[in-house]
Amino acid sequence: MNPNLYHVLGAKQFSRSELDELFVAAKGMEEVVRTGGNRSHQGAIMTTLFFEASTRTRLSFEAAMSRLGGSVIGTENAAQFSSAIKGETLEDTIRIISGYSDVIVMRHTEIGAAKRAAAVADVPVINAGDGAGEHPTQALLDAYTIQKEVGQLDGVRIAMVGDLAYGRTVHSLSYILANYRNVMVYYISPENVRIPGYVKRYMDEKGIRYEETGDLESVAGSIDVLYQTRIQKERFPSLEEYEKASGHFIVDEELMSRMNKNSIVLHPLPRAGEIADAVDNDPRAAYFRQARNGLYIRMALIDKALSGINR
Amino acid sequence: MNPNLYHVLGAKQFSRSELDELFVAAKGMEEVVRTGGNRSHQGAIMTTLFFEASTRTRLSFEAAMSRLGGSVIGTENAAQFSSAIKGETLEDTIRIISGYSDVIVMRHTEIGAAKRAAAVADVPVINAGDGAGEHPTQALLDAYTIQKEVGQLDGVRIAMVGDLAYGRTVHSLSYILANYRNVMVYYISPENVRIPGYVKRYMDEKGIRYEETGDLESVAGSIDVLYQTRIQKERFPSLEEYEKASGHFIVDEELMSRMNKNSIVLHPLPRAGEIADAVDNDPRAAYFRQARNGLYIRMALIDKALSGINR
Amino acid sequence: MNPNLYHVLGAKQFSRSELDELFVAAKGMEEVVRTGGNRSHQGAIMTTLFFEASTRTRLSFEAAMSRLGGSVIGTENAAQFSSAIKGETLEDTIRIISGYSDVIVMRHTEIGAAKRAAAVADVPVINAGDGAGEHPTQALLDAYTIQKEVGQLDGVRIAMVGDLAYGRTVHSLSYILANYRNVMVYYISPENVRIPGYVKRYMDEKGIRYEETGDLESVAGSIDVLYQTRIQKERFPSLEEYEKASGHFIVDEELMSRMNKNSIVLHPLPRAGEIADAVDNDPRAAYFRQARNGLYIRMALIDKALSGINR
Repeated sequence: MNPNLYHVLGAKQFSRSELDELFVAAKGMEEVVRTGGNRSHQGAIMTTLFFEASTRTRLSFEAAMSRLGGSVIGTENAAQFSSAIKGETLEDTIRIISGYSDVIVMRHTEIGAAKRAAAVADVPVINAGDGAGEHPTQALLDAYTIQKEVGQLDGVRIAMVGDLAYGRTVHSLSYILANYRNVMVYYISPENVRIPGYVKRYMDEKGIRYEETGDLESVAGSIDVLYQTRIQKERFPSLEEYEKASGHFIVDEELMSRMNKNSIVLHPLPRAGEIADAVDNDPRAAYFRQARNGLYIRMALIDKALSGINR
Repeated sequence: MNPNLYHVLGAKQFSRSELDELFVAAKGMEEVVRTGGNRSHQGAIMTTLFFEASTRTRLSFEAAMSRLGGSVIGTENAAQFSSAIKGETLEDTIRIISGYSDVIVMRHTEIGAAKRAAAVADVPVINAGDGAGEHPTQALLDAYTIQKEVGQLDGVRIAMVGDLAYGRTVHSLSYILANYRNVMVYYISPENVRIPGYVKRYMDEKGIRYEETGDLESVAGSIDVLYQTRIQKERFPSLEEYEKASGHFIVDEELMSRMNKNSIVLHPLPRAGEIADAVDNDPRAAYFRQARNGLYIRMALIDKALSGINR
Repeated sequence: MNPNLYHVLGAKQFSRSELDELFVAAKGMEEVVRTGGNRSHQGAIMTTLFFEASTRTRLSFEAAMSRLGGSVIGTENAAQFSSAIKGETLEDTIRIISGYSDVIVMRHTEIGAAKRAAAVADVPVINAGDGAGEHPTQALLDAYTIQKEVGQLDGVRIAMVGDLAYGRTVHSLSYILANYRNVMVYYISPENVRIPGYVKRYMDEKGIRYEETGDLESVAGSIDVLYQTRIQKERFPSLEEYEKASGHFIVDEELMSRMNKNSIVLHPLPRAGEIADAVDNDPRAAYFRQARNGLYIRMALIDKALSGINR
């Protein structure tokens, strides 16, 4: 891996001071967008290399590059590179794409794909999700949103709710939060999709307090952040069990009434019923503001990645 | 719906004075293109959100934005937002995409989708076709072409030919023409795909003269514009009936010989046999010039939509 | 065909002096890229019209246009234009797209499609591969790479290895090489995928020496360039026969030890086992440098095509 390149591969790579710096940069990007974008990376090219479609994430990155004046090329169809017929390795694909662009944003289906790409790339690689692995830019925008909305991340009390086993965003967010002081995490999930042991071990190592529970109602009154996620129907053995589990974790007006005045509700989106539409009008519903923060965080990351190279 | 945004949702929204103004603006865009485009919307981002592929329409919009110096992001694969698994509503998708861009151009499969999008969008929405509903920018470029080629829209005599039941472009064009004086419309179609009652009622309300007939040959000599459309094979109960119907409405050299020297032939394209290739060389064959006018109309609409907002 | 437009349709169209000029231009483009690109075609639009997906080639062209400051619109889904339902001819599609852009880069599944497009286009057409026909920009970047790496094309001794029957790149490269003096070509292939008679006849007409053989080992020591290609499994009647044939033509460290110190190995990529990974670290392995040269050649071609028109 070229040590002169700034890759964004996983949430654990970030130190507290890097996060502080990133969030200041993201704040600056809000002003850049408000005043019509800038041309600071005019002439630079970003390639979005998506081995599986994720239009929302891809458009967020492409908007970020455009706001900085850069050009975007890309594909949602990168899987054809490694099609059965053509049989190209990810490494060969990346070596070639490196020759066309100044930064690569990659989504892949396999854990560790971003690291493999970075190992051979001549340009920075930003991980936009690698299978059940990491989705670091989502975790960064989540943390940025908490800092903006709650005021600070030190001392934050957060409930992560839903499918905590397969939902990679809650893993990555946990790793980011482990950089802060006096954090309290409630992991609230159905029995069969509890937070994995390796996440808990990481939190233990970092001295972060957490508690596992299935009781959202009791916790609701004592948190700053309710981080809701989608319960994925397909993980459950039967529809009945799914409905029993998911029924406990709907964020609706009744639940909102239990929450503090200054607390917020986040969701990585898309949602599918686990937050009632009626909640959208509550000022504590921060999930659309959260989505917008993705633009600023990605602008800050792209800016940092591109500033480090001599084109 | 945010009243400060300029949405383009349906053909009925346009008044005569708005049309006059739009066509002057489109004329100006011809000069902009002739002199290499401008950078008047540099830094602005257009998202093309196509829930069904329509490459021709999408490229026309993207070219329009590029000629104005703006950036384009987008997808032909927007249907994945609302996939069975992810289950996101159109409203949520639009709320998120609003955060990435300054104008949204949307094609959808459902009638009314553009209005639903505009109801929640923070940026202008331009309807690039919503199912069997409207395709207003096509109707606007059609009307602009008639004004350019015939000289004026007041007093125009036009035959709309083909599948008038399902062809949304003839509906939208009728609504636009209803703004002009002394218009005469001949609706010429097979029996089973006649112009719908709701279009006729609208024309009645506006006092526009029209006539329904199945006899193109008799009408050919007394019109300024022959607006040909594709007869969609799949609408007919049998191939035999389709061929009987469609056979009557081929625009060929014989038919052209019946038409006036200063009349024109239009077609929204693609065509599939209903205009003979030999007609292409006739100066009255205006359908490729018509397609090009789409660029100027869309530039004018995008320019108006973007000029109304403070980024 | 409009004689004022610079189309790139096939390898045979290039004279020696045009090649010399092109390679000087490509060399200049290396400097343009090294210094961050330029804005010489700002405001111009390139349409990439791909009737079959070829992400690698498409991204190379799009990067080239972006480095020159131009805009890109396009589709990997152009086949829908001519779908069974819509039934549009290629000619109609090109006439319409001509109205949206300043240059069209086209990949198609049928031999001769690029010529048909150029016959009706109002803007230059660049052939990015038409079925089993030609892929001229690949041959140009191959020849440019040889000139850069070996020093000159006159007098070059090259072995083209693999599937020489269906591999269009070796055909196009042969046509380019026929412009040079004292060239020697070894066509090395399994019996059932030998170089076609029409290529040999062209070489005969141009007075180019060549030899057909199945023995790569013997030739390895007397060549400047080993041009490896993929043996396509699906061409062979049985897996056993495929493996027997392909086994002879692996470029590995043993084969590299037979080759000259200043020779190079090329490959149009993707590869699928016919060059061992261990060879990548050999300085004579030039295939990734070759891929990068595609950017400079395509920049030079786009620049020439766009410079010839008045927008």
